[in-house]
Amino acid sequence: MNFKTLELVDKKLRWIDQTVLPLEVSYKTSDDYQEIITAIKRLEVRGAPAIGIAAAFALAIAAEKEQDTYDEFILKVANELRDSRPTAVNLFWAIDRMLDIYVKYANESTEDIINELFYEAKCIHKEDIAMCQQIGLNGATLIKDGDTILTHCNAGALATGGIGTALAVMYTCKEQGKKIQVFADETRPLLQGARLTAWELQQENIDVTLITDNTAGMLMRQGKIDHVIVGADRVTNNGDVANKIGTYAVAVLAKEHGVPFYVALPDSTYDKSLETGDEIIIEERSSEEVTKGFGNQTAPDNVKVYSPAFDVTPAEYVSYYITDKGLQKGMREE
Amino acid sequence: MNFKTLELVDKKLRWIDQTVLPLEVSYKTSDDYQEIITAIKRLEVRGAPAIGIAAAFALAIAAEKEQDTYDEFILKVANELRDSRPTAVNLFWAIDRMLDIYVKYANESTEDIINELFYEAKCIHKEDIAMCQQIGLNGATLIKDGDTILTHCNAGALATGGIGTALAVMYTCKEQGKKIQVFADETRPLLQGARLTAWELQQENIDVTLITDNTAGMLMRQGKIDHVIVGADRVTNNGDVANKIGTYAVAVLAKEHGVPFYVALPDSTYDKSLETGDEIIIEERSSEEVTKGFGNQTAPDNVKVYSPAFDVTPAEYVSYYITDKGLQKGMREE
Repeated sequence: MNFKTLELVDKKLRWIDQTVLPLEVSYKTSDDYQEIITAIKRLEVRGAPAIGIAAAFALAIAAEKEQDTYDEFILKVANELRDSRPTAVNLFWAIDRMLDIYVKYANESTEDIINELFYEAKCIHKEDIAMCQQIGLNGATLIKDGDTILTHCNAGALATGGIGTALAVMYTCKEQGKKIQVFADETRPLLQGARLTAWELQQENIDVTLITDNTAGMLMRQGKIDHVIVGADRVTNNGDVANKIGTYAVAVLAKEHGVPFYVALPDSTYDKSLETGDEIIIEERSSEEVTKGFGNQTAPDNVKVYSPAFDVTPAEYVSYYITDKGLQKGMREE
Repeated sequence: MNFKTLELVDKKLRWIDQTVLPLEVSYKTSDDYQEIITAIKRLEVRGAPAIGIAAAFALAIAAEKEQDTYDEFILKVANELRDSRPTAVNLFWAIDRMLDIYVKYANESTEDIINELFYEAKCIHKEDIAMCQQIGLNGATLIKDGDTILTHCNAGALATGGIGTALAVMYTCKEQGKKIQVFADETRPLLQGARLTAWELQQENIDVTLITDNTAGMLMRQGKIDHVIVGADRVTNNGDVANKIGTYAVAVLAKEHGVPFYVALPDSTYDKSLETGDEIIIEERSSEEVTKGFGNQTAPDNVKVYSPAFDVTPAEYVSYYITDKGLQKGMREE
């Protein structure tokens, strides 16, 4: 990668500020856990795996600075981190894992505790890197030289500690010498496709074309798309997929045109506590993201807006789940 | 209507400037045909029927002002008008009709010629008003009290001389006392749904909710949409429909969910010279409409963009064509 989403440098966290991409490539560095929380809240760091890693480092960094009244302090930091993005599953998972380490080493010396916390945070990061790589390798077996891939939103290096989930497949194809072409949906309302996916693929010299979300159907009808690969925010026991709003429409279009539809995800994105996608509560976003998206106001004052952040794609639209553990056949019948 | 898209006032054309909607409701008036051409080019006046009417008035207004060297002058004006928006079919149709009148009365007095030209332009406008009304009446027979309708782009009063095509159905339902609810796709890249459809329905007190184009699929899956109604830029002999990009995806989603899909159009939008939609040449728009849509730049520099203005919805996705002549059953099998 020609950029680093997250990195530990001299016990400080360094991250790329995703709010100013693609116009500015700006890195921030901090050893203040509260600044890291602000960065997560402001979406400078985003993507469930990336948020989990940032939170783990934040906890270790906080422990390093405050070497006193530990029990209370560590729990306070953990709670503040949990509150930063209440819906990111990986955040809770990473914090729980860090607290387990803290409990395990609570009777050791302060130095030992701090070392173990940094070690665990680095483990979480390294595991994420390995998992992305494995998703890439598994997914690449589905792609032939010369194929064209459509993706929605950003499930790339910017969303993880490694090379991404959906985009990991593209990076791996490139490394294997397969020539691929990517179409990136701009992904309204927040335009993660235009701002982030197009940018990071461009950085890695992958042939990418930006389209409005409205254009995907026409491209599929013209036979110009060979595969669709998206990420996932949560997958329930029956295989239903919660992902960025608009994913479901892409899945329906893919089925209609016989284009295979893949969901790339780490095994940890499976939410075993939920049976079907109907149980997933969908976050609603502010109307201003639609009416005043990027600069000018583009809708009448006081217009009603309905802007869900995610939708659910039922399992019967999925051809394959691409995970770090392997390929899992979906329920879509061809 | 609480606003007038186009109006002749004392032999001057008055129009609502659609480029500043919905933030400003600003009317312009001119008796200079070249200013009217500029208004068409700048999309201050848009929508195929509205453009045709504006062009007809512009020709009469030009004749009124320049009462000399007629043959040459009228042809010059006609050619300049034709060049203003090369793809709007109604523009050519309206100009041809005005030229026929000119030829018919060429040997009469200047006063007579001018009167006949104004009379013909007013006829074109009046016919359009009547046609919109009839589309509304015919379409309203498909809608029940309490129904919810999804629309894409703007096929409303702002696109015609009357109450619109797709939106005419909604206005007629309201007049008939049927309570309806409308969801308006924002319609990237130019956001005609957000800027124009949401505004004009709001003006007429119709319950409208703005959504991103990505949200339509989720709403249909939740059973919240009873009908889809869109306009058309051109319909070929076999029933294929060229309309704003994204219409095809809505049609596919509608079919998948058993939601009826209607195309509202004047009989004159049928292009009898083309057999199927494959023959329609699709205009490509500038990449800046996608990358610098409305204010800030939201995509990386030099990113490749593919931005077709229209797509083609094959006849087999259409439940009904709603025209001024009546309802015509489409080829979609339920």
